Amino acid sequence: MVIPCPVENKIEAGTDRLAEAAVRVGLNVRHGQQVIITAPLEAVPLVRKITKHAYKAGASLVTTFYADDEATLARFSNAAEDTFDTAATWFADGMAAGFREGAARLAITGGNPALLSGQNPDLVSRASRAASVANRPALELITSFAVNWNIVAAATPAWASLVFPGVPEPIAVSRLWDAIFSASRINGEDPVADWAVHNDQLHRRADYLNKRRFAALHFAGPGTDLTVGLAEGHLWAGGSSKAKNGILCNPNIPTEEVFTTPHRLQVEGYVRSTKPLSYQGTLIEDIEVRFADGRIVEAHSTKGESVLMRVLDTDEGSRRLGEVALVPHSSPISQSGLLFQNTLFDENAASHIALGQAYSECMTEEGGKTTEALAARGANSSLIHIDWMIGSGEISVTGLDAAGGTVPLMRAGEWVTAV
Amino acid sequence: MVIPCPVENKIEAGTDRLAEAAVRVGLNVRHGQQVIITAPLEAVPLVRKITKHAYKAGASLVTTFYADDEATLARFSNAAEDTFDTAATWFADGMAAGFREGAARLAITGGNPALLSGQNPDLVSRASRAASVANRPALELITSFAVNWNIVAAATPAWASLVFPGVPEPIAVSRLWDAIFSASRINGEDPVADWAVHNDQLHRRADYLNKRRFAALHFAGPGTDLTVGLAEGHLWAGGSSKAKNGILCNPNIPTEEVFTTPHRLQVEGYVRSTKPLSYQGTLIEDIEVRFADGRIVEAHSTKGESVLMRVLDTDEGSRRLGEVALVPHSSPISQSGLLFQNTLFDENAASHIALGQAYSECMTEEGGKTTEALAARGANSSLIHIDWMIGSGEISVTGLDAAGGTVPLMRAGEWVTAV
Ligand SMILES: [Zn+2]
Ligand SMILES: [Zn+2]
Ligand SMILES: [Zn+2]
Ligand SMILES: [Zn+2]
Repeated sequence: MVIPCPVENKIEAGTDRLAEAAVRVGLNVRHGQQVIITAPLEAVPLVRKITKHAYKAGASLVTTFYADDEATLARFSNAAEDTFDTAATWFADGMAAGFREGAARLAITGGNPALLSGQNPDLVSRASRAASVANRPALELITSFAVNWNIVAAATPAWASLVFPGVPEPIAVSRLWDAIFSASRINGEDPVADWAVHNDQLHRRADYLNKRRFAALHFAGPGTDLTVGLAEGHLWAGGSSKAKNGILCNPNIPTEEVFTTPHRLQVEGYVRSTKPLSYQGTLIEDIEVRFADGRIVEAHSTKGESVLMRVLDTDEGSRRLGEVALVPHSSPISQSGLLFQNTLFDENAASHIALGQAYSECMTEEGGKTTEALAARGANSSLIHIDWMIGSGEISVTGLDAAGGTVPLMRAGEWVTAV
Repeated sequence: MVIPCPVENKIEAGTDRLAEAAVRVGLNVRHGQQVIITAPLEAVPLVRKITKHAYKAGASLVTTFYADDEATLARFSNAAEDTFDTAATWFADGMAAGFREGAARLAITGGNPALLSGQNPDLVSRASRAASVANRPALELITSFAVNWNIVAAATPAWASLVFPGVPEPIAVSRLWDAIFSASRINGEDPVADWAVHNDQLHRRADYLNKRRFAALHFAGPGTDLTVGLAEGHLWAGGSSKAKNGILCNPNIPTEEVFTTPHRLQVEGYVRSTKPLSYQGTLIEDIEVRFADGRIVEAHSTKGESVLMRVLDTDEGSRRLGEVALVPHSSPISQSGLLFQNTLFDENAASHIALGQAYSECMTEEGGKTTEALAARGANSSLIHIDWMIGSGEISVTGLDAAGGTVPLMRAGEWVTAV
């Protein structure tokens, strides 16, 4: 008789449920559809389970691209400085062609968030910029929902050790898996049914906000007095979305937010971050910024200020907002009290704003969706999209309509009105 | 004090030397050049060493694509039968674009040769055909030496267990690494210098054969009486080659052969295999075929005959020869006595012929290298290229010149004339 290790067993069962949710809820793979997966090397067991479920669901071919943190570090340790502006454009273009031919996209997140924190920031920023430029066409197909896509997380030792500092690695990994399973809402008897209920809740909240057609939101709380104008023809979204290929997918697992497009020229006032922002391995803490005419004109942080300044100076759009999102303080991820240092989780723990690129998905069709039309209606454009938490149990959010009327939306971090 | 495990230490040191040889001898990476690696998942430690050496040698970016045998099996176990004609064309095209932009190509071989032996042969053949068609543009850039490229091997548990049946897995893996290191000529004090000597030897042999300009080769031995006409303007090659980007690379590590292009319409007689042919996990043993007008008109084998028949019926060119190669019986790989079930090794253990596609590299420029021109001069074309061992210690090879003269080239499997 063999007594199985209960921890391994629990992870085995949980990852299988997570894999099934990623395929059936996240991607909603169509018969005959190709699936393109990207994943950290440490996620091989989860990828294998996803691959199995994807084939069972009718996938014609699953192609996985693994990223290896060690190989990335080897570049910073050994490569010549004059080579850091190079990116694998040919590969990013190949992926984009795959999406154009109808492949679904599954990203597994979980690599070490602090991987590059000890490297030369100039080289990090050059490599990252080159990769962003190369990935832009593929990313635009994703953010515009040309195909069904999904992001899920895998616990890796390096990430787990950051989230649970001082905890022995295997225990940290097991705890991080627990946190992922619970945040991903796959612990119930029927995760697919649970996600249907959750999606319904998010859709009703987005519908409510879309019907109100607020001109702006006002955030008030400690250190925060911020008015975020909304783009002309902004749309609120949340939960599952119908991709242009007709497939209803859940782009993020987990997701707790409803979000829309701010007006890039109409943000005024000041705001203080309520959680540290993890950016390429650096924690930027206690951010305080002031907006005028939509642009950050003053910025400070008690930690990571030089990284913050570098981010703000990425390009023309990096000092303006591309997203505003509302998440109740009672959301399960918020209640876990964990700082994941991974946007997929942290942005779902609190109301947030994002610097940089807007989602064209969060804009109506009227007025057109060319880059120029979107910009004219107020949607921001940038190489970056960095979510940044400003919600807490002490935050109020008020909707302002064009006529000057106000509607309380959140008080003490919770929705005022049920939907 | 920690006493390091001597086996791990030996593999660690050997793979580092192999990695350096792959980068400096195999690819000869140029400063600023991208490198594209494909590898089985089990080869992560070797890939990391190659990555490090590639960056040290000036690579601008190393991108690795891992193949997972488990994921491949998951397709055969779970996917719908109507989806097996799908291939990742978008990805193969992306790689081809990478080569066109100048990236070097490193392939690590070592996946389980018998992986698909238990699967539905019809599905295996449909999937393999679809992949061949998709990969053709990228493969043509490689075989025509548009860029510098190299193949090396990594020992994996599944492969090692096939080569050393009945041996405990870690010991089998260690023995296979030993065999790879020794066949790859990296055990000397200065592998780069040793490879220079070896390349010189192969170049002088190829030069000798190119000067003779034989019209045909005659193979004689037990069960074999075969005349292989050579293509008009055939070129003998062996060892390092200068790619069109000007870089001298060693496409195969190991390599022991000199090889050229047979005339697809001028092969006559019969031939018997001298080693089993491992094809997609099936061992095809004791092959006997008869050629008339360059085409296989009769074929038998004592094992794997149905697989052989399927291979021969792949397309118009799969019953004709695309390569003839001479390897002395005293070559180190031949002397190891091992059947690697991997072409990179087995084709370097004996003289061989290959069914299918010819190498345009093995044809002179005169007369042109368009597909039509190459075909008119006798070079074969096919989706497949399968090397098949016909040499041994009992084989004689004689060169026939156009005037009817004969020159003994090999007797009892060894070169008659030193070069
Ligand atoms: Zn968000
Ligand atoms: Zn966001
Ligand atoms: Zn050969
Ligand atoms: Zn060959």
